[in-house]
Amino acid sequence: MPNKLPLRLGIAGLGTVGSEVARLIETQGAELARRAGRDVIVTAVCARDKNKKRSCVLNGAAWVTNPVELATHKDVDVVIELIGGSEGVARELAVATLKAGKPFITANKALLAHHGVELATFSQTHNVPLYFEAAVAGGVPVVKTLRESLAGNVIKEIYGILNGTCNYILTTMRETGKAFAVVLADAQKLGYAEADPTFDIDGMDTAHKLAILSSLAFSTPVNLSEMSVSGIRNISLADISFADELGYRIKLLGVSRLTNKGLMQRVSPYMVPLSAQLAHVEDALNAVYIEGTSVGPLTLIGRGAGSGPTASSVLGDIIDVANGGAPPAFGVSVTNLKPIKSLPDSDSVGAFYVRLMVADEPGVLADMATILRDERISIQSLLQKGRNEVGPVPVVFITHDSNESAMAQALAKLSKMPSVLEAPCVIRILPH
Amino acid sequence: MPNKLPLRLGIAGLGTVGSEVARLIETQGAELARRAGRDVIVTAVCARDKNKKRSCVLNGAAWVTNPVELATHKDVDVVIELIGGSEGVARELAVATLKAGKPFITANKALLAHHGVELATFSQTHNVPLYFEAAVAGGVPVVKTLRESLAGNVIKEIYGILNGTCNYILTTMRETGKAFAVVLADAQKLGYAEADPTFDIDGMDTAHKLAILSSLAFSTPVNLSEMSVSGIRNISLADISFADELGYRIKLLGVSRLTNKGLMQRVSPYMVPLSAQLAHVEDALNAVYIEGTSVGPLTLIGRGAGSGPTASSVLGDIIDVANGGAPPAFGVSVTNLKPIKSLPDSDSVGAFYVRLMVADEPGVLADMATILRDERISIQSLLQKGRNEVGPVPVVFITHDSNESAMAQALAKLSKMPSVLEAPCVIRILPH
Repeated sequence: MPNKLPLRLGIAGLGTVGSEVARLIETQGAELARRAGRDVIVTAVCARDKNKKRSCVLNGAAWVTNPVELATHKDVDVVIELIGGSEGVARELAVATLKAGKPFITANKALLAHHGVELATFSQTHNVPLYFEAAVAGGVPVVKTLRESLAGNVIKEIYGILNGTCNYILTTMRETGKAFAVVLADAQKLGYAEADPTFDIDGMDTAHKLAILSSLAFSTPVNLSEMSVSGIRNISLADISFADELGYRIKLLGVSRLTNKGLMQRVSPYMVPLSAQLAHVEDALNAVYIEGTSVGPLTLIGRGAGSGPTASSVLGDIIDVANGGAPPAFGVSVTNLKPIKSLPDSDSVGAFYVRLMVADEPGVLADMATILRDERISIQSLLQKGRNEVGPVPVVFITHDSNESAMAQALAKLSKMPSVLEAPCVIRILPH
Repeated sequence: MPNKLPLRLGIAGLGTVGSEVARLIETQGAELARRAGRDVIVTAVCARDKNKKRSCVLNGAAWVTNPVELATHKDVDVVIELIGGSEGVARELAVATLKAGKPFITANKALLAHHGVELATFSQTHNVPLYFEAAVAGGVPVVKTLRESLAGNVIKEIYGILNGTCNYILTTMRETGKAFAVVLADAQKLGYAEADPTFDIDGMDTAHKLAILSSLAFSTPVNLSEMSVSGIRNISLADISFADELGYRIKLLGVSRLTNKGLMQRVSPYMVPLSAQLAHVEDALNAVYIEGTSVGPLTLIGRGAGSGPTASSVLGDIIDVANGGAPPAFGVSVTNLKPIKSLPDSDSVGAFYVRLMVADEPGVLADMATILRDERISIQSLLQKGRNEVGPVPVVFITHDSNESAMAQALAKLSKMPSVLEAPCVIRILPH
């Protein structure tokens, strides 16, 4: 029989996620006790404002003033960190909790992306679990799937739609025909995007999550530093409409792929063909595609943010603590997390979508074609739309597989053509 | 540090899956040891024909003549059952292994669907894990997701494409325009369908898997007996083509839904709208949609059969055994598996697609409409196609939400109309 003493939780951070975790424990106590084999209760909490109105009651829970006190609190068996931030108190609390020999559960992707190996080392040394399902893709159980379910596979590739704000913006642009800046402003008004949206729309949020997934998938230390990261700021309605016409959806993807030249990790907008499951993942949904040697292709789709889905993953981790077992944080022991040489972006190969805004005059196509031929880039299809005697017209082409470096050379030359009137828009085509 | 002794496996059944599990353990030994924290080796096996050519080497593994010997074999820590069948030796081996206090891993859906509660009881009494990820949806980690990741949710609904043969047949019919019988015969030649395909195409395979998922999702004993089961034998090309035109794909689904009147469990062809992820799951892929109170909608898509995906799930279970931890087989203790009243099919409500083959003569539509009105079934849309002075023409209608019992009454009356020349074809529309 399982241990009959209640499992006592200390929660650091009572924002939307922390309050929801506490509320679910209060309102679904009986169900959780059945799943956990014993009662699960919140015994201590910490938040900036004690008097803020919250959805949870927190009857009988002790309030501590410094979150780090939870690590050594006598009535706390497990610490749940929902403060956020890669440094400061979140990191301190993580280290102190694991050193105190208590399981640590977090939804903090920045903390894991920057200090994952350090924390995994403490988890291993002190033989206590470090769980972070909620840190990647909200309610989608991709951490557990990589760490446990697919442990018998060698993973070849993993990519995903990991930022709901970006996917919502791209979907809304396509559905409403409104430009990026307008949709972003609307999303900010509705609370779907942050007041400072940089972290989401420039790809860094996706990069944090991808770094964690890469570590789990390829048994390598989390490595954010050599990742190539770009966001969706420059995606225009024209590109979205061309994508539609050509049979693609534009998605911001985090892509991590093991090649014989090294590990490619990239965050970038992609043209996703409609034949891929991820093309049909719309609005704020997240999705992860994994390809393993035995399982083949596996796709997980669900809500990537919000208090409910995030709390769902935190509760899953709590139940795992209750049921014992302690898989290594990243699936293998820290000594078996081996660095893999990064594949520089310039060494990777794939197809591209390129949109040029050109003066509508004779000879432009010939000049373009010459530049591409000189860089050995061959065209799979080309679209030229409309006529415009005063302003620029778009010329769109899709390449066959090309070297990134050759494409960079070609783009530099294309940009310098007098008849090319705006900076070219380049979007990689999946798989790439 | 984890236990450093090797984890010693006994494998019962060396068909395609058993051989693949053994082969992966032989060829990926180092990777598996890193994931398991110790070596994983096959020490004993059992199969009908010792001399059959296999992809695995089995160096040093003992051969036993009766699989049940593996349960008490001195060199076996974990038994993996890949024989199949709900009765006889598979069941005997399961009971003997758990009684011997050894973890039992199986891919046997029939065994779990018929004796899941019995085996879970032995697992609990002897405090050893019973794992069966490979029994449902092959490589898709849906058992673990329901048992562990979503433990903090109350599940509202679960449905899925759980039989790859049926999905392959339906996809191929749509893509090639070949009739059911022709595609089935081709699939049998190619080895994609069994010589006796009854179990797959009439829905019983899906029913077994659905019963297991229901138990995990709703904490209820596996209950196969009150499930309504129909297959895809009567799906015609005409229906597939009308589905296309109306914005649906026809899929064989297992659907399990908790309503305030009871638990609805049904295997049936469905019209799946193109807006649903499952509409885009083609060929032999499987997919499961889960709706939980906190996580919201979650979709898992992957290969549902074949030696690789099935072995992937078996290996995941092996790693779980190595990492300790012992979640209850169905997520809660056996005493907490509570029977839920079955919702009879006649009590459920939803929309229908109905195709009638009628004589092309005046008054038919009026008679039809009267019958439907009398049963209070209202029509959302109606299609009548083509003219045919000698043979029947199809009339297709989609209803608004209607009672199953009212629809059954209406169909009985419609069938008796002299101008209705064939048995009506009725397909439920998701959600239903």
